[in-house]
Amino acid sequence: MMEGKNVLITGGLGFIGSNLARRLVQERANVTVLDSLIPEYGGNPRNLHDIKEQVVINLSDVRDPFSMNQLVQGQDYLFNLAGQTSHLDSMETPFTDLDINAKAQLCILEACRIHNPEIRIVFASTRQIYGKPQYLPVDEKHPCHPVDVNGVNKMAGESYHIVYNNAYGISASVLRLTNTYGPRMRIKDARQTFLGIWIRNLLEGKPIHVYGDGRQRRDYNYVDDVVDALLLAGTKPDAEGKIFNLGASEPMTLEDTAKLMCKLVDGANYEKIPFPEDRQAIDVGDFICDYHAFEKAFGWTPKVGFAEGIERSLQYFREELEHYL
Amino acid sequence: MMEGKNVLITGGLGFIGSNLARRLVQERANVTVLDSLIPEYGGNPRNLHDIKEQVVINLSDVRDPFSMNQLVQGQDYLFNLAGQTSHLDSMETPFTDLDINAKAQLCILEACRIHNPEIRIVFASTRQIYGKPQYLPVDEKHPCHPVDVNGVNKMAGESYHIVYNNAYGISASVLRLTNTYGPRMRIKDARQTFLGIWIRNLLEGKPIHVYGDGRQRRDYNYVDDVVDALLLAGTKPDAEGKIFNLGASEPMTLEDTAKLMCKLVDGANYEKIPFPEDRQAIDVGDFICDYHAFEKAFGWTPKVGFAEGIERSLQYFREELEHYL
Repeated sequence: MMEGKNVLITGGLGFIGSNLARRLVQERANVTVLDSLIPEYGGNPRNLHDIKEQVVINLSDVRDPFSMNQLVQGQDYLFNLAGQTSHLDSMETPFTDLDINAKAQLCILEACRIHNPEIRIVFASTRQIYGKPQYLPVDEKHPCHPVDVNGVNKMAGESYHIVYNNAYGISASVLRLTNTYGPRMRIKDARQTFLGIWIRNLLEGKPIHVYGDGRQRRDYNYVDDVVDALLLAGTKPDAEGKIFNLGASEPMTLEDTAKLMCKLVDGANYEKIPFPEDRQAIDVGDFICDYHAFEKAFGWTPKVGFAEGIERSLQYFREELEHYL
Repeated sequence: MMEGKNVLITGGLGFIGSNLARRLVQERANVTVLDSLIPEYGGNPRNLHDIKEQVVINLSDVRDPFSMNQLVQGQDYLFNLAGQTSHLDSMETPFTDLDINAKAQLCILEACRIHNPEIRIVFASTRQIYGKPQYLPVDEKHPCHPVDVNGVNKMAGESYHIVYNNAYGISASVLRLTNTYGPRMRIKDARQTFLGIWIRNLLEGKPIHVYGDGRQRRDYNYVDDVVDALLLAGTKPDAEGKIFNLGASEPMTLEDTAKLMCKLVDGANYEKIPFPEDRQAIDVGDFICDYHAFEKAFGWTPKVGFAEGIERSLQYFREELEHYL
């Protein structure tokens, strides 16, 4: 389906972007990845090092309108995945978060409006924009009351896409991602979900830290399932102008997550520690996404269970650890 | 209640801001108004010319963090009313709208967090953030799907206030205003609701233009009622961290609105004309706000009916027309 298509991926050296780029290369698309490789974010040249001759790698930032104005030209698809993902960072440096997650998104859309209004865009949003759930599982009708600056800016970035779809006919679809994990994720720290730092600690023989009582429930998507979803959202005409949740069929508590992960590594263990104050202030408690609208519309359902996905991730990072620290 | 209190009003030379400032001066508060007097926006020195010795007028822009960092200090209350209000302008110059309605709001909140975390903030939001109603009347639980860039940025500006309230304890309340009208509004053009330009046309003996079939329903609040609401939101502890709609008890169609207004002016008439394309793209159809949550919480209900409010407005602008063109 994507053979011969021109595809631009913002954040294409990052976790989800690089996994998507690899799939698209397999499908013989002409892939351009854009990434700024800011050390605190998810971009890592290692993610595409073995296929770097098969993609165009353009090092620039989504905040650079000159670059975006050029790169969107001639593209059939834009998978718009670049973002600042850390909730804590968004509270400490709120203007940086605003520039990347809101203003740059408007820049990208203006670039498309002016230079390539026929492009098809998929925007990676986040369940974070819902805030503290009023009911579970959270469907797309749930009100959006983000609890941190990152959630506010992602909400704005998402909404610009829908406004440009509806007002200008620039085809855009939105997926609200939950905790995504898998090979090529950032594991250096907790900036891309806590699962990253947990994987690192497991592989370095350190205990996993579970905040609070560990009873908060979460849902996790393996990255290959998210790549499937992005491709569906980008290619199904019925997805245009729509917003869909992703999610998992097996939500679990943080403590059960830690237990399961520890079982997969000899001698691993976890510790419960009190919630750090800065995290407590923006914690949302239980969170489970309802992904049935997307399932019903396009038949998507997550295929990789959590145990299997974590096993695959550990396998990857055992071999690749040095490149991700 | 406000006697002796230090109050800062952003957009204080504007329509709602100046009416609020006048009330606060009556109540013997120490009022500082901040305004940038950008010609396309609502600020007009005429609005406070007769009481300019009784307020401090500081000409600066909410996008100026240096000014904001100084001005928030020592204030008991901040009525945060400055904004870009034109939906069409927000589509033509989206980054300006973003800078004023989103980024500057974050600046203001950072200024408060750093220099005056005890301040009490009321933020003037808009029913525009709901977008096209999924049901009527629209209550605060209605999902927010703004149809233009202005709506997206106002939604972000509003959400930052709630995030700072919840994460940092900086007391903030939000009112989502519907069409507000009255003395001192901008009537030069349609940048502050269509009622402004309608009033101007009536007074200049020109026909009112009603777009489309004129059947879209709207609700209108007279500015004195909105000032009441702002003061309640700012002084009631139960309003902290909350979002409330305002609204009217007598929604009416655009055509009926035009008819009623024409009756009040000798020889006035209206014309139905086709929707301009740029307005059609971001029109939301019928819109009626449900304000009963705010009524229930604080006993607020609009006191000035539309016919009376328009009569008072026409009276004001008959005498003052030259200062508002």
